[in-house]
Amino acid sequence: MLTKTLDTPCVVIDRRIVESNLQRAQAYADRHGLPLRPHVKTHKLPLFAHRQIALGAVGITCQKLGEAEVMADAGIDDIFIPYNILGAAKLDRLAMLHRRVTLSVTADSAETVAGYAARFADAGRRLPVLVECDTGGGRCGVQTADEALALARQIDAAPGLAFEGLMTYPPRAANETVEAWLAGAAALIRAAGLPVNRISNGGSPGFYSAAEVRSATEHRPGTYIYSDRMQVSLGHGTLADCALTVLATVVSRPTPERAILDAGSKALAADTCAAPGHGHIVEYPDALISGLSEEHATVDLSACAARPAVGEKVRVIPNHVCVVSNLFDAVTLVEDGVVVDRLPVAARGRVD
Amino acid sequence: MLTKTLDTPCVVIDRRIVESNLQRAQAYADRHGLPLRPHVKTHKLPLFAHRQIALGAVGITCQKLGEAEVMADAGIDDIFIPYNILGAAKLDRLAMLHRRVTLSVTADSAETVAGYAARFADAGRRLPVLVECDTGGGRCGVQTADEALALARQIDAAPGLAFEGLMTYPPRAANETVEAWLAGAAALIRAAGLPVNRISNGGSPGFYSAAEVRSATEHRPGTYIYSDRMQVSLGHGTLADCALTVLATVVSRPTPERAILDAGSKALAADTCAAPGHGHIVEYPDALISGLSEEHATVDLSACAARPAVGEKVRVIPNHVCVVSNLFDAVTLVEDGVVVDRLPVAARGRVD
Repeated sequence: MLTKTLDTPCVVIDRRIVESNLQRAQAYADRHGLPLRPHVKTHKLPLFAHRQIALGAVGITCQKLGEAEVMADAGIDDIFIPYNILGAAKLDRLAMLHRRVTLSVTADSAETVAGYAARFADAGRRLPVLVECDTGGGRCGVQTADEALALARQIDAAPGLAFEGLMTYPPRAANETVEAWLAGAAALIRAAGLPVNRISNGGSPGFYSAAEVRSATEHRPGTYIYSDRMQVSLGHGTLADCALTVLATVVSRPTPERAILDAGSKALAADTCAAPGHGHIVEYPDALISGLSEEHATVDLSACAARPAVGEKVRVIPNHVCVVSNLFDAVTLVEDGVVVDRLPVAARGRVD
Repeated sequence: MLTKTLDTPCVVIDRRIVESNLQRAQAYADRHGLPLRPHVKTHKLPLFAHRQIALGAVGITCQKLGEAEVMADAGIDDIFIPYNILGAAKLDRLAMLHRRVTLSVTADSAETVAGYAARFADAGRRLPVLVECDTGGGRCGVQTADEALALARQIDAAPGLAFEGLMTYPPRAANETVEAWLAGAAALIRAAGLPVNRISNGGSPGFYSAAEVRSATEHRPGTYIYSDRMQVSLGHGTLADCALTVLATVVSRPTPERAILDAGSKALAADTCAAPGHGHIVEYPDALISGLSEEHATVDLSACAARPAVGEKVRVIPNHVCVVSNLFDAVTLVEDGVVVDRLPVAARGRVD
């Protein structure tokens, strides 16, 4: 079955580009002795999580407990959830998951640590907890090395918990700052007599310079598996490295300069990136996706010499691929323009 | 069960606000003799589609064939799909649906009409087709009354089709222009000897002045059932009319001025509106959701006197509610802060 015969809109993933993206990243990691712990939020597919591990990853990262449950069900046995997990319902689920896989989590507050400590007090097996550090990203994380030490001590003092190390989601292009932050905090904690076994750094945009953060003992890239327009606009690879496209049909050509596709914000998502427009049309690189409504993309063809006809199918590289994966119940794998598989997006919609 | 005991993030819908929004719109429609054909893309729930009809709607509108199939399965028997439906696979599904419900569709090109004409040539029962008109919205639609007439003739000449009328998704605050466009095209088509049975106008933002488009024989509001920050910022109602909120937990308070919620772009979506930020926090109206990553919202509390603690739950009114509905497998209905039902979002993810 040819890719272009698929009904639209649908997500099409080029398996060879995926393999090439995974191998290139693993080779960089191996060259620098930097273990990979890929973030599955991008693909949400057990098949690719297993492939990442087969290529050498030490485990996976999930952003939500629900994703981790799906991956555990699929036989993945080393899962890191770098998230503050709060509340009795989630802590019970976490405890169940802890019984069947090697699990680790993060905390950035005394409240989060207290929740883990209470629930895991008599779990039998200690829960490894890393302290999340805000190294400049401005999201979660303790603000100073002293705060990191205080949380490390609180974790270490809890009978059911094990202080495991530090975790950060770094700001872009700031390896020196991140390294200084993490090395300083680790030194302070070690000087206090606590071992720092793991220092987990993350992100795809800066991945190919991640070895500069010498303190890190692992890296959690996510988007690198598919890449997208945002990655390319940040200088990470080219459009040819983008493995995931949304196949769409031109459903209207109301004027000579306008085309309408059957993929809107419910297929491409409204996330923006530095490049203009809401996605890149592979077959019409000079076209601009100037607007999205829920089920339509409006395309400005004024810069295009050749222009598509009603009924023609085109491939769109999305701005941000992780949110697109999450909008489709299934994805189609292709090679050389031929369909080779169709997979349910097993961890899609696992919001909690 | 109290709303605040629900695990997060989750979608919470206040059933009384829904009922009040539906009744107010139906009362306006009744007062002006303007039949309603609500767009179910916003809620994707058979329960609410049936309620809209019970209150007086003449049928429903679906933007995708997949949504229409779900609604037909749920017993809705008059469905309008204002979309150019192209390709053999979709036309076959359309033909099956046409056998079991009262269906109508749109076209804005000779190619789309030709597809309908070929597939329905011997369907036994004519498929009603409306011509989509671009009255200034700049999306799909014929550009002139002459083009509308040409398509009306093509439809009328096809043995399996019936020319039904005109449809538009209007630009904002342009009732006079829209009325002039539709009245002019209808007059031209009638002068050519073709009846114009239906003129379908749409949209929630301009709904309460929709009667000014006197030619319209029906209106297709969608978002009005829940409302959202975008509607309010367009001057349509107040935040108290917003029925759908995302219940989220404060998972981090890294600094005195920053809170992090467990609802990111995979729960709130990245759609923007005229109001600043990515949603309105009901309990902290002076807070600004300054950024979204996939599973976190970053909140600027600097303007807030009272500030939330880690573990506290808050309700977020999203910028654009239709895309939020589409991100959750289920929604919870509440009344007076108590859970009364939990419903699967039956037509969620029906992208084609």
